[in-house]
Amino acid sequence: MNVYGKHYRTIWVKEDDPAVIRIIDQRPLPHQFVIEDLTTVDDVARAIKDMHVRGAGLIGAAAGYGMYLAARHAPQSSAAFTEALLAAGETLQATRPTAVNLEWAVQRQLTAIAGAGDDVGAKIEAAFSAAQAIADEDAEFCRRIGEHGVSLLEEISKRKGGKAVNILTHCNAGWLAFVDYGTATAPVYVAHNRGIKVHVWVDETRPRNQGARLTAWELGRHGVPHTVIVDNAGGHLMQHGLVDMVITGTDRTLYTGDVANKIGTYLKALAAKDNGIPFYVALPSSTFDWNLRDGVAEIPIEQRDAAEVKTIAGLRDGAIKSVLLTPPDSPAANYAFDVTPARLVTALITERGICPATEAGVLGLYPEKRPA
Amino acid sequence: MNVYGKHYRTIWVKEDDPAVIRIIDQRPLPHQFVIEDLTTVDDVARAIKDMHVRGAGLIGAAAGYGMYLAARHAPQSSAAFTEALLAAGETLQATRPTAVNLEWAVQRQLTAIAGAGDDVGAKIEAAFSAAQAIADEDAEFCRRIGEHGVSLLEEISKRKGGKAVNILTHCNAGWLAFVDYGTATAPVYVAHNRGIKVHVWVDETRPRNQGARLTAWELGRHGVPHTVIVDNAGGHLMQHGLVDMVITGTDRTLYTGDVANKIGTYLKALAAKDNGIPFYVALPSSTFDWNLRDGVAEIPIEQRDAAEVKTIAGLRDGAIKSVLLTPPDSPAANYAFDVTPARLVTALITERGICPATEAGVLGLYPEKRPA
Repeated sequence: MNVYGKHYRTIWVKEDDPAVIRIIDQRPLPHQFVIEDLTTVDDVARAIKDMHVRGAGLIGAAAGYGMYLAARHAPQSSAAFTEALLAAGETLQATRPTAVNLEWAVQRQLTAIAGAGDDVGAKIEAAFSAAQAIADEDAEFCRRIGEHGVSLLEEISKRKGGKAVNILTHCNAGWLAFVDYGTATAPVYVAHNRGIKVHVWVDETRPRNQGARLTAWELGRHGVPHTVIVDNAGGHLMQHGLVDMVITGTDRTLYTGDVANKIGTYLKALAAKDNGIPFYVALPSSTFDWNLRDGVAEIPIEQRDAAEVKTIAGLRDGAIKSVLLTPPDSPAANYAFDVTPARLVTALITERGICPATEAGVLGLYPEKRPA
Repeated sequence: MNVYGKHYRTIWVKEDDPAVIRIIDQRPLPHQFVIEDLTTVDDVARAIKDMHVRGAGLIGAAAGYGMYLAARHAPQSSAAFTEALLAAGETLQATRPTAVNLEWAVQRQLTAIAGAGDDVGAKIEAAFSAAQAIADEDAEFCRRIGEHGVSLLEEISKRKGGKAVNILTHCNAGWLAFVDYGTATAPVYVAHNRGIKVHVWVDETRPRNQGARLTAWELGRHGVPHTVIVDNAGGHLMQHGLVDMVITGTDRTLYTGDVANKIGTYLKALAAKDNGIPFYVALPSSTFDWNLRDGVAEIPIEQRDAAEVKTIAGLRDGAIKSVLLTPPDSPAANYAFDVTPARLVTALITERGICPATEAGVLGLYPEKRPA
């Protein structure tokens, strides 16, 4: 997508130096646009853990590049090389426990590297190619999600006689959460580009305000009409007919249809159900978990530092500053995700098309995943 | 309640000067404890509108004192006096459209003043007495709400073998929202004082963070165990058995059981229903609306300044400072309340006891309100 007139992905290899991976550091957005260089797997792990990069697809792509950087710096002997890469994979997977794309990218890299023969140079080549392929595929899958999902917006637009389609979204499942295009936002961008009137209600998404900071910023840069709301407001808007559809992303989707996404998604799904509003989840297949069956019982939910709840950063006098919101002695809890049961999800929007959030629906689109 | 060892109400007449009404200015809490003097009805109206004071009971009491101050400054001729008081009442009622206590207090004052004969001195006396009576009654009703509501906590405590009862609350319906004791917090304070183990999940309550700022502060000052959470977290906690009951306050409750309360309350009520957790609303009868029948369709919902969503204030370097959270050019919407339909409310806790959130339940406790 374009930033101030220039096309960017969220992660890329430095043009004249393949030893350097570049990212947009998302922490100072929307106030400052900062590009950061990463040269080691530890740089990448820290960037994921401390959320310089975040979002299902992007942390998968970052993990892919992280494995490539690990390969570049690994010992040359075959056994030690393999050991170093396994350790790098564990480090990357441990950064964010709920996100399934990390494990997926690491396993894909380990398979690619193992398949490249014994020569370390060939292994590094293979890791580079796999990292690029993961990133390219993420961008391409998001593009297709937009192509499939736009039909839902077109239908509502027709029903409303061309009046703006009101989409509510939670967190940032935009191009900043992936390599390009985004998932939840992809159908919105396609619709907007085709001249369909849209308006996005952007949940601010406490505690880290990915909506107020990132979704609002990227929609604004692309000229998409939007309004920032507090996370508390969605139910009221739905009760009063001000929301036509909800689209969110997901950090892990079970093949049974249960969806782990940013904390608070479940509340919006309940409100959508209570008001007869369709609730869609958009995802590339890299976000599917093909093992677990019961989301609430089985998906591990990351708990983060209480400081993310007790303090918040924003712009003041041209600089980003943090302020304390609570009494200093009050404890705070910080659960990063919640699980929306499949029964509340109208459908999943994937790179292969739209399907019901059920085992039959998902396996219908991904028949190769059917148990033998 | 006690603040740093000294008993305070949230509003009172200055000890040696009946021309001055004092309030705790709630805007700088929890960082600074500031007492403010009000001497005119315009002072009071501004304090209500700009939320130096807020909360159903407290703004009712403030409106009562505001009418008294208006009487002190009104012209001495009988017709002009009446006209001035009617205008003062309109000014006060216009400050916050959703709250019903304002209208209730203004009408009560107009009746008291009209009933005091023709002497302006007697009218001012009557307004003073009525203001004190409104405040005293608010404190007394909240005390009784605590006595009635504690039975619900005792029952859960017994069932859990004395383990802490986990109460989730939204916004601040604590003593800071009333003259003393609070409503949603009243049963919690009584339980805590009786040695029943309790723990309160405090929704931060964006955009004005009455939970993170006020509820956390007052619970902390009283030594009640609590944890601040973002508004997004409650559904996840309920899915995992970490909430035994929800208690909130209300700004307007219809006699049919529909409840207008701080934006986001509806989402918590949906989650409580989905997880089989009781959802209680605590209120003194001054908060009942005896006219409207359909909350979602009929209760006016206040919209406030977008700046309350786009910026937030907190403590930094010992001073309260405001930071910008969103892109400067992104619009924001700020709905202050939502309506929770009666079907989601387990019961109402009033000064007369606990009743179902139905017309029959409410009129059973308040038979004098039955249509003749």
